[in-house]
Amino acid sequence: MGESSEKGVSRRRFVGGAAAGATGYALGGGGAAAEAAKPPGRRVDAVVVGAGIAGLVAARKLRQAGRSVIVVEARKRVGGRTLNHAIRGDEVVEVGGQWVGPTQDRVLGLISQLGLETFKTHVDGQNVYSREGSRQTYSGTIPPANPASLGEIAVAIEQLNGMAATVPLDAPWTAPNAFEWDGQTFETWKRANVLTDEARDLLDLAVEAIFAAEPLDISLLFTLFYIHSAGNLNRLIDTAGGAQDSRIVGGSQLICLRLARKLGKRVVKLGRPVEAIRHRRGGVEVATSRETWHAKRVIVAMAPEMASRIRYKPGLPPLRDQLTQRLPMGSVVKCIAVYDEPFWRSEGLSGMATSTDGPLKLTFDNSPPDGDPGVLLGFLEGHEARVLAERPPKERQAAVLASFERLFGARARTDVREYVEKSWAEDAWSRGCYGGFAPPGVLLDFGEALRRPAGRIHWAGSETATVWNGYMDGAVQSGERAAAEVLTEL
Amino acid sequence: MGESSEKGVSRRRFVGGAAAGATGYALGGGGAAAEAAKPPGRRVDAVVVGAGIAGLVAARKLRQAGRSVIVVEARKRVGGRTLNHAIRGDEVVEVGGQWVGPTQDRVLGLISQLGLETFKTHVDGQNVYSREGSRQTYSGTIPPANPASLGEIAVAIEQLNGMAATVPLDAPWTAPNAFEWDGQTFETWKRANVLTDEARDLLDLAVEAIFAAEPLDISLLFTLFYIHSAGNLNRLIDTAGGAQDSRIVGGSQLICLRLARKLGKRVVKLGRPVEAIRHRRGGVEVATSRETWHAKRVIVAMAPEMASRIRYKPGLPPLRDQLTQRLPMGSVVKCIAVYDEPFWRSEGLSGMATSTDGPLKLTFDNSPPDGDPGVLLGFLEGHEARVLAERPPKERQAAVLASFERLFGARARTDVREYVEKSWAEDAWSRGCYGGFAPPGVLLDFGEALRRPAGRIHWAGSETATVWNGYMDGAVQSGERAAAEVLTEL
Repeated sequence: MGESSEKGVSRRRFVGGAAAGATGYALGGGGAAAEAAKPPGRRVDAVVVGAGIAGLVAARKLRQAGRSVIVVEARKRVGGRTLNHAIRGDEVVEVGGQWVGPTQDRVLGLISQLGLETFKTHVDGQNVYSREGSRQTYSGTIPPANPASLGEIAVAIEQLNGMAATVPLDAPWTAPNAFEWDGQTFETWKRANVLTDEARDLLDLAVEAIFAAEPLDISLLFTLFYIHSAGNLNRLIDTAGGAQDSRIVGGSQLICLRLARKLGKRVVKLGRPVEAIRHRRGGVEVATSRETWHAKRVIVAMAPEMASRIRYKPGLPPLRDQLTQRLPMGSVVKCIAVYDEPFWRSEGLSGMATSTDGPLKLTFDNSPPDGDPGVLLGFLEGHEARVLAERPPKERQAAVLASFERLFGARARTDVREYVEKSWAEDAWSRGCYGGFAPPGVLLDFGEALRRPAGRIHWAGSETATVWNGYMDGAVQSGERAAAEVLTEL
Repeated sequence: MGESSEKGVSRRRFVGGAAAGATGYALGGGGAAAEAAKPPGRRVDAVVVGAGIAGLVAARKLRQAGRSVIVVEARKRVGGRTLNHAIRGDEVVEVGGQWVGPTQDRVLGLISQLGLETFKTHVDGQNVYSREGSRQTYSGTIPPANPASLGEIAVAIEQLNGMAATVPLDAPWTAPNAFEWDGQTFETWKRANVLTDEARDLLDLAVEAIFAAEPLDISLLFTLFYIHSAGNLNRLIDTAGGAQDSRIVGGSQLICLRLARKLGKRVVKLGRPVEAIRHRRGGVEVATSRETWHAKRVIVAMAPEMASRIRYKPGLPPLRDQLTQRLPMGSVVKCIAVYDEPFWRSEGLSGMATSTDGPLKLTFDNSPPDGDPGVLLGFLEGHEARVLAERPPKERQAAVLASFERLFGARARTDVREYVEKSWAEDAWSRGCYGGFAPPGVLLDFGEALRRPAGRIHWAGSETATVWNGYMDGAVQSGERAAAEVLTEL
């Protein structure tokens, strides 16, 4: 505590010549002697951190290639942001990610391999559109907004799809207009290009539904990348034929539950938050709350934000660490009301509603395949989720049920048998959903650190996907890609 | 690993009625019996996490009120983002925060109380302005840009100051235009209001110098809040009479070194990264790498981003956790070249340069009070820092010295006796400087979580200041405010 200054501010950083050396990430190679000194038994080719879809897919691929693998998971369950919740004994609702759709070939292939089945999201009947307290019903995918607004939205979608097509999926920061587009929020673009209130509100609703964030939170460039990554905007927002087309019989968590069962308990280790990842001569150590694993390579299959909460030795390269400071998680509370029967169906309603009034702006019929029991699903997203996540649960439940009542009549409130909700910002190991998104400026200056390995650490998770980024399909792609990287190095 | 779902998704959240209860933060009161069961000796009224200015000021105030306090610090030194570096034996340069100026009454008062002295930043002589390879010298604060650009800048500064004055310092999200201003980046505002290239480049330079970030990274509302917090934009950018007006004899880290010496080694505990903060019945536990402390209250005096890397039990309220995901640290490498003498002075130069060409865009004469040795200081900020932080040190040093040469002639390269740099994004316990800033949408939806205590945890650090946010003066204010909060509760 004397008045001496810290030594070696610059000099220690002059060891080594290459960029990797500068940040302590040129530690690879050799090291058999050092390895021999480690305690035996907890030595594997690769450790995978995170037993969501990305991590389990990566582990499976490594196992199939004959490599020894351990998956360590903080939670006492597998599934990550997919999570089944039991209702009425055998039935299940999903409080996390749940839908799959056309062109999501990787996750559809996986579902099939695992012996799982899909069924169509219930869309039969009239949809409800609510705006400024007035309620209408309609057919098809286009809500009965005023014609000027509908025209503006059609033009906006076309513009966005055209711009999105120019954004390279593996390097969005190289798009011809990358600087201009990453320099503004989607809100800025919307205000400049869409003038009617109703069209703006509907675009807000689309952004909230896709990102669980607000148009003012998100970079235009990231929005365009995300659209391109899914194909086009229509595919993102559509139910039938789009990203909400189908569900998985028994619930989406079955993907991870089945993958984990095949890998076995000796591979998938639950209840082990990873506290530190340390490069050592010739290898890397993964210290969990229970034990330390020694591996040649590590795959961190977590959202970048959550991966930042692990301690790394040496510390991550500066661009990578600062990237993880800049991909916040969305804000969503998934709200589910269970009824004896899907009463709205007999009234000719689909259970789907679009509402520019909050707090629930989007609902679905989320009943099991046989429609027994009846289940309504509503989302609090972005601003609404942030406000209501801080309120007492009873107050939040009352607000949600009042929304259901406004959209589907009094029975939606009076006949509720069970109410289930999941506020993902409160979840200790996700701290938000659906995923990490990029505010302005992030892709441009930090994007190249997204998938670049840090020494022996490789990155997976849907946020790193180039196709269907943010979706279960992207998670599969990311796990396969990270496993392929590791196999090249082993 | 059976196909069972996680239990209690919603129900456990229904315990307790109030909002605080919902997130597990209504645990206070009583608990004497529980306390008695703890091991003795490591029990204090308050634990302060972080021995930077904010933390040490808070600890001092609590001690002065007769309370027992421990300060735990991850590093083996005090000072946080202030850091002295020894050159040539007795002399010191600062590789962290260093300047103070008029209206920073709190830090100026503290400096005086600690028996420290200030001296004026060296400004005598001609300044250098460099643009597109051409170099001019000038007097005063206004670089010799073309008249149209100078006119635009004068208007822009007036506009920004006027807008900033409408932003309430304790609640920027309640500004009359908060939604519009937090919906856009500073880049968007700049492109709409400033048309000449040179004026845009100079505004970029100002933003980079103030935030170590780019105009496209930052919310317009946050920029305006920050301007108002310092008084006005002129005060932020000026040397004489502004935020760069004066320096501290012996280096700014002396503030913390002296504070820590007065508190003593029994109070300030170094080399103790905090791993977890846990609410317990009647108190709170702070688990460091070496031992666990039991206290009635905790003050976390860290940048919000770094505070997010501690484990909290129960987890932080959703809005607070998501806020810490959304205040990334700036990107800066502070670069210092030491010479036998300040040769530029004899050539009639001040050592101050403004350059719209990179990588160094801003330099200062940073010699000790007696001008022996001569010291040039240059900043890599925002984009330049991000690019060069990833390059090998030798390459970065060569680029920096080439900039000094371009601005001050060949001697600036050939006569270097010592080169010192600090890349703050690499620093394990700061991971960026000067501070955390807000991208669009953050203040609006998350701002109210910035200072709101989470149960027994109070928040300090310059990012929480309402006056001189981001500066040493703001750190002092935040420490005093957090200590006052705690004293009310003890």
